[in-house]
Amino acid sequence: MSAENNYNTKYFTVRFPASQQYVAHVEINRADKMNAFFEAMWIELGQLFNQLSHDPSVRAIVLSGAGEKAFTAGLDVKAASEGFLTGESDADSARKATQFRRHIASFQDCITAVERCEKPVIVAMHGFSLGLGIDLSSAADVRVCARDVKFAVKEVDIGLAADIGTLSRLPKIVGSFGWVKEVAMTARIFGAEEALRVGFVNAVYESRAKAIDAALEMAALMASKSPVAVQGTKELLNYSRDHSVEDGLRYTAVWNSAALQTKDLTAALLSGIQKRTPTFEKL
Amino acid sequence: MSAENNYNTKYFTVRFPASQQYVAHVEINRADKMNAFFEAMWIELGQLFNQLSHDPSVRAIVLSGAGEKAFTAGLDVKAASEGFLTGESDADSARKATQFRRHIASFQDCITAVERCEKPVIVAMHGFSLGLGIDLSSAADVRVCARDVKFAVKEVDIGLAADIGTLSRLPKIVGSFGWVKEVAMTARIFGAEEALRVGFVNAVYESRAKAIDAALEMAALMASKSPVAVQGTKELLNYSRDHSVEDGLRYTAVWNSAALQTKDLTAALLSGIQKRTPTFEKL
Amino acid sequence: MSAENNYNTKYFTVRFPASQQYVAHVEINRADKMNAFFEAMWIELGQLFNQLSHDPSVRAIVLSGAGEKAFTAGLDVKAASEGFLTGESDADSARKATQFRRHIASFQDCITAVERCEKPVIVAMHGFSLGLGIDLSSAADVRVCARDVKFAVKEVDIGLAADIGTLSRLPKIVGSFGWVKEVAMTARIFGAEEALRVGFVNAVYESRAKAIDAALEMAALMASKSPVAVQGTKELLNYSRDHSVEDGLRYTAVWNSAALQTKDLTAALLSGIQKRTPTFEKL
Amino acid sequence: MSAENNYNTKYFTVRFPASQQYVAHVEINRADKMNAFFEAMWIELGQLFNQLSHDPSVRAIVLSGAGEKAFTAGLDVKAASEGFLTGESDADSARKATQFRRHIASFQDCITAVERCEKPVIVAMHGFSLGLGIDLSSAADVRVCARDVKFAVKEVDIGLAADIGTLSRLPKIVGSFGWVKEVAMTARIFGAEEALRVGFVNAVYESRAKAIDAALEMAALMASKSPVAVQGTKELLNYSRDHSVEDGLRYTAVWNSAALQTKDLTAALLSGIQKRTPTFEKL
Amino acid sequence: MSAENNYNTKYFTVRFPASQQYVAHVEINRADKMNAFFEAMWIELGQLFNQLSHDPSVRAIVLSGAGEKAFTAGLDVKAASEGFLTGESDADSARKATQFRRHIASFQDCITAVERCEKPVIVAMHGFSLGLGIDLSSAADVRVCARDVKFAVKEVDIGLAADIGTLSRLPKIVGSFGWVKEVAMTARIFGAEEALRVGFVNAVYESRAKAIDAALEMAALMASKSPVAVQGTKELLNYSRDHSVEDGLRYTAVWNSAALQTKDLTAALLSGIQKRTPTFEKL
Amino acid sequence: MSAENNYNTKYFTVRFPASQQYVAHVEINRADKMNAFFEAMWIELGQLFNQLSHDPSVRAIVLSGAGEKAFTAGLDVKAASEGFLTGESDADSARKATQFRRHIASFQDCITAVERCEKPVIVAMHGFSLGLGIDLSSAADVRVCARDVKFAVKEVDIGLAADIGTLSRLPKIVGSFGWVKEVAMTARIFGAEEALRVGFVNAVYESRAKAIDAALEMAALMASKSPVAVQGTKELLNYSRDHSVEDGLRYTAVWNSAALQTKDLTAALLSGIQKRTPTFEKL
Repeated sequence: MSAENNYNTKYFTVRFPASQQYVAHVEINRADKMNAFFEAMWIELGQLFNQLSHDPSVRAIVLSGAGEKAFTAGLDVKAASEGFLTGESDADSARKATQFRRHIASFQDCITAVERCEKPVIVAMHGFSLGLGIDLSSAADVRVCARDVKFAVKEVDIGLAADIGTLSRLPKIVGSFGWVKEVAMTARIFGAEEALRVGFVNAVYESRAKAIDAALEMAALMASKSPVAVQGTKELLNYSRDHSVEDGLRYTAVWNSAALQTKDLTAALLSGIQKRTPTFEKL
Repeated sequence: MSAENNYNTKYFTVRFPASQQYVAHVEINRADKMNAFFEAMWIELGQLFNQLSHDPSVRAIVLSGAGEKAFTAGLDVKAASEGFLTGESDADSARKATQFRRHIASFQDCITAVERCEKPVIVAMHGFSLGLGIDLSSAADVRVCARDVKFAVKEVDIGLAADIGTLSRLPKIVGSFGWVKEVAMTARIFGAEEALRVGFVNAVYESRAKAIDAALEMAALMASKSPVAVQGTKELLNYSRDHSVEDGLRYTAVWNSAALQTKDLTAALLSGIQKRTPTFEKL
Repeated sequence: MSAENNYNTKYFTVRFPASQQYVAHVEINRADKMNAFFEAMWIELGQLFNQLSHDPSVRAIVLSGAGEKAFTAGLDVKAASEGFLTGESDADSARKATQFRRHIASFQDCITAVERCEKPVIVAMHGFSLGLGIDLSSAADVRVCARDVKFAVKEVDIGLAADIGTLSRLPKIVGSFGWVKEVAMTARIFGAEEALRVGFVNAVYESRAKAIDAALEMAALMASKSPVAVQGTKELLNYSRDHSVEDGLRYTAVWNSAALQTKDLTAALLSGIQKRTPTFEKL
Repeated sequence: MSAENNYNTKYFTVRFPASQQYVAHVEINRADKMNAFFEAMWIELGQLFNQLSHDPSVRAIVLSGAGEKAFTAGLDVKAASEGFLTGESDADSARKATQFRRHIASFQDCITAVERCEKPVIVAMHGFSLGLGIDLSSAADVRVCARDVKFAVKEVDIGLAADIGTLSRLPKIVGSFGWVKEVAMTARIFGAEEALRVGFVNAVYESRAKAIDAALEMAALMASKSPVAVQGTKELLNYSRDHSVEDGLRYTAVWNSAALQTKDLTAALLSGIQKRTPTFEKL
Repeated sequence: MSAENNYNTKYFTVRFPASQQYVAHVEINRADKMNAFFEAMWIELGQLFNQLSHDPSVRAIVLSGAGEKAFTAGLDVKAASEGFLTGESDADSARKATQFRRHIASFQDCITAVERCEKPVIVAMHGFSLGLGIDLSSAADVRVCARDVKFAVKEVDIGLAADIGTLSRLPKIVGSFGWVKEVAMTARIFGAEEALRVGFVNAVYESRAKAIDAALEMAALMASKSPVAVQGTKELLNYSRDHSVEDGLRYTAVWNSAALQTKDLTAALLSGIQKRTPTFEKL
Repeated sequence: MSAENNYNTKYFTVRFPASQQYVAHVEINRADKMNAFFEAMWIELGQLFNQLSHDPSVRAIVLSGAGEKAFTAGLDVKAASEGFLTGESDADSARKATQFRRHIASFQDCITAVERCEKPVIVAMHGFSLGLGIDLSSAADVRVCARDVKFAVKEVDIGLAADIGTLSRLPKIVGSFGWVKEVAMTARIFGAEEALRVGFVNAVYESRAKAIDAALEMAALMASKSPVAVQGTKELLNYSRDHSVEDGLRYTAVWNSAALQTKDLTAALLSGIQKRTPTFEKL
């Protein structure tokens, strides 16, 4: 499909499955290293989701990892320990702190691109899904997984508090703050059933392939609705997570004061009455 | 019971069950249209809950829907598409936006009356409970349902993002943000068990009648406690939802600095010792 | 163990189990009164956790209650009704309110010491765990319990809204706001399985002894990790609970700009490669 | 002018000056009592500004007080002390607190109607402008005054902290928090020059008449601009006062995404080029 | 006066001037070192204001510095550079950061005691009022000064960003953010007139003695009002500074629901009618 | 100076004055069009300030406009009306709103680069400084101007509410909210003295040249201080503007826990004692 040609990526594969219209399938493509991330990869990830965000031929996105072993083993610790984690040796600690702060901020920004992306993002995870894998999937909208998944908020095991999003987002995603505290301070592995029980994932599937298929189906379903409605819903839910109900209602009223002026409303209403599938213009 | 006469409603029935003292039972009364809402209905709903809020003979409220088919099918789409959703045709888009914004804000305010009501509100749902039914029940304190319930955040199916409260309140009611994203962006139906699992409802009952009975029993239990304590609890929980723990503690201390100066404290303590039911003055 | 001698407590026992390095085990020690709290006790509790917070030989804390009957029956209502709940009788209501407000604020501050404590705190509960027991355990990081536990947000039964933390913290700990509303407005007892289902406790054990053992094991696991990483994780999670994701990310970047400049990082990485247990300096 | 007939007010006069198109001039009309307020007056004030807010023939509002002596002497203390300040004598203090809280909240809401009003409100003050006069004018957008004005945050002189808005709004209106503290805790009189210096008023005029004329001219100037632009400006400034810059920018972008779709833009641009006065449609 | 005996201070003098009833005059008492602060001093300052806060014989406080040269030269840099600024030399930078953070937090807490103090605090400054002198006076309610005062946000001159309150409070006290930026990033001296113009001080007096006298008079005026009203005003203004107007109004309504139940209201009203000075009970 | 060569700009001139070490002087370079902005210009502005932010040879920045007539006339209305203000004509209003929202957000982001820039930015304004000129200078730290300056929040005159930052930032920069309301809703011109009085500018100079010289001197003074201290001060002041005092203190303590670990502290202290100019390492 020609749309794929627009995406010139090195560490990710971008496909547009024929059977799921308006759906982009992004795959982390470093299977030989269990999809571990180094700096060039997260920079590319950020650019990729910025581009997907405004691409009118995309209405929903699935993110998964190549290979059978891992969604991602997280940060490529070897690369990191040779790179930014070392810092400039002759600077004083305040100056090193500035370097670290800038680096963390720009790293966070790449992952936040997934949250900022205007289209819904569904992550399908399997195998090892550690550390940065939790940061990354927490920035997405929906998470599903294969039964073999092994999750861990792994960062304390390498001597640091997770700083790319997990500690800010995970407590707002799942329903037990005590559970978040436990997994983040012990770094213990947890599996698919536990992730489902606490609400981290929406569903568990038999295999990597089935998890991806299910994610693509869910994405296709979202992509079949009015993009004005779906993208507005993502924005309003993310806004509400971080604001009071009152602020949320006010922002919603302003948002919909424009969004209701769409032809999608009539298209959706009519097709509902006429029992046919509506068509919506690009967004 | 004479208290009922105070409530002169057209689209809702207000009963004061003899066996549940201080409990008001409100029923949406448009069963032939599956209790679908049009403008006059939500305006009356707002007025009704404003009145209940200050009625000293009411200490807890149950809300349900008449007829076997639906708690409510949501917005009466036909009425809406003939009314406010059309807007004035000759105004420019900015002026139409003003009309929409005012309309949404006043609609939101009617539903928020349920949250603002000083007394606890328990919603008993059954059958179709769609769209506005989610907005409405999310503004209540406790939700229970019958096994046959069919829930859906239906708005994207008619081309719009839910704007009467669901997107602001639902993420703060249930324990899985990913699940909220899924149901709000797919509009898919979900049932009683799923609603229980994610924490949207507190309990599931065999039938509409049993759900309503259970709701009335829970309301009666709340109504048997000190109204100073119960109404303070509702206010403090709603405040805390939207503020930091620190702010919550500060507000709580100020609130209780007056609330502890109640005779209910002694009444409750004594009746505890004497193993009898306490009586509390009107509030 | 000599470290215990540093803790000169009257109503609590502080032990440093030989088999769990860097773990402090605090026990409420008023078993004959079901560990009910009076003012001198919560003042001592606050002081104790302030001391533990800065003790470099402590990296994780377990809190439990002595005796088989109760973690704590909550507030010692008899002592309270003879003391602060009465107030000065000749002052006007505004002046009484000032007395109450100051009293509540200083009471809250003692319990908040558990949350403010820089080290993770795991509470192991059994038997009656009522009222103040919920306020107290909600200020901890992780809660586990024995199968026989009987929880209740008991305050409305004595005529008041819970004001020492439950209403501010409980909604942010568990995944169902409706459930919080129900238990806080009915004061009904709930058990171990229900507490697990809503996410209030992380796990249920067969007995008090097993719950405490499990809590000690979890504490030991946390204490075996880098204290820079674990204590940073606690701080960042608590900060994020009360702030937007964006604010959380910014605070995290600043925090880790110093925290990453620790030898623990190298120690953890090397020991990971060399398959041995890392040693971390005091903090 | 016929528009005036739409306003059926008892305690306020509403005029539409012929020389200031789209400007409503509201005057407090109880000169014999120095325009002191009792309950029926502030209820009418709230209703009046709610009506003005949506009246398409109004684009700016001037508020002043009848008679030479006072803009307003504030609360009619005699009426208040016979009315709500007494409370029901047989209720306990917690129940009285509920009555007071409801009363204050509804009183605040009437005054907040001035802030909520979508059109700019300019207050022209003279003579005594005490207590409630500060609450009221702080809810407006612009304040001007006559040289003879006598301001005071008078409430501590009658034994209470100002509770109808002054303490929440005044610190956000003027540039010296220390000055706010002083005038609010001493209740001392301050005059026109001092009010100008701290930024409470925008300008000082020789007399009541000149202050009102100047206010009408300023209102006419605002009314001559695009109402989409002016009303958006009021909303965005009020929003920004209470939010972070980042939140303000986000809300602004959403607001203007609809507001820029107005014909006023072209009308304003063209009339600028053609050096003529633009005409804008009703809003 | 016997009340003075209650205050056993080493670095501060506490007087109760006979001519200003209910007023405490606190003086920094290290004139030979230009009232420069070392750790024991700020710890005592914190304890002193905590005690004043609850002392029923105190209704307003004046703070000044002994000697003609300085209100305070700020931090005793010599003592600081030998003490906490050095840190433990063998710890890694993350551990040193923990020590610094704890130290700053406890230092801040001592200065915040002035803000937390329930009674109004008026600072009278003269001569050098540098660095910590700005942090300290910014935590007070009202600032006045002598004509000879020399202010500076001095911290950048010793290589650090002010961290004891100036950067958090100064922008909320004065009316020009650009001016705050300038003085905080240049550390330049500014005088009495400039401080008055930007709203940092309320008034300028000819000499140290006259500034103190004026501060005592202002304090006496505040102390002559209802303490329920004055202390409520301080609390509500401080709350409002950090919250939205809407939150401020809500908190105010709850606060006054108890505070209006005071005899001071009648006392103040009656004495107003009878033209005599009211007497208020202790608080 | 060679550093200039690093800046390859088209619409701005970047100079490094020999007499002001570490100071960059940026000039808007479109004098023939009164420095009016079109899209390519603000994109370049954003990139330029992002680069300056991390350039270790830059410690303070001055921004001014080329030519005698204007700092900037604001938005190039002609270019705008041919470009983004038109929108795609065939899209429905909701889709147009999406285009506008994206455009405004990216425009805002370019201007916010000035605020985000880690180094202090001083703007020297003269002649026409309209519309976008207010948005832009409000994002800087300090504003000074020439006596001939003509300011206006000009946007309502072209039919829109200012959306690039003025409405969010101006109320937090100056001390009179009423004045902000007036100038933003009337679009009237205001001059240097008025700008000084309300705190918008820090100082007024006789001419453009003198304003720029004074700005360069102020920048040089800031650049002579420890960059760790100055850049920390900017960050902490900006953070505090948008957060409560309590949050500000907490963030400050964490920030300085790293920043105090700088050699600048010793360098500054020693040079103070030795009466010589300290040297600080790059940052």
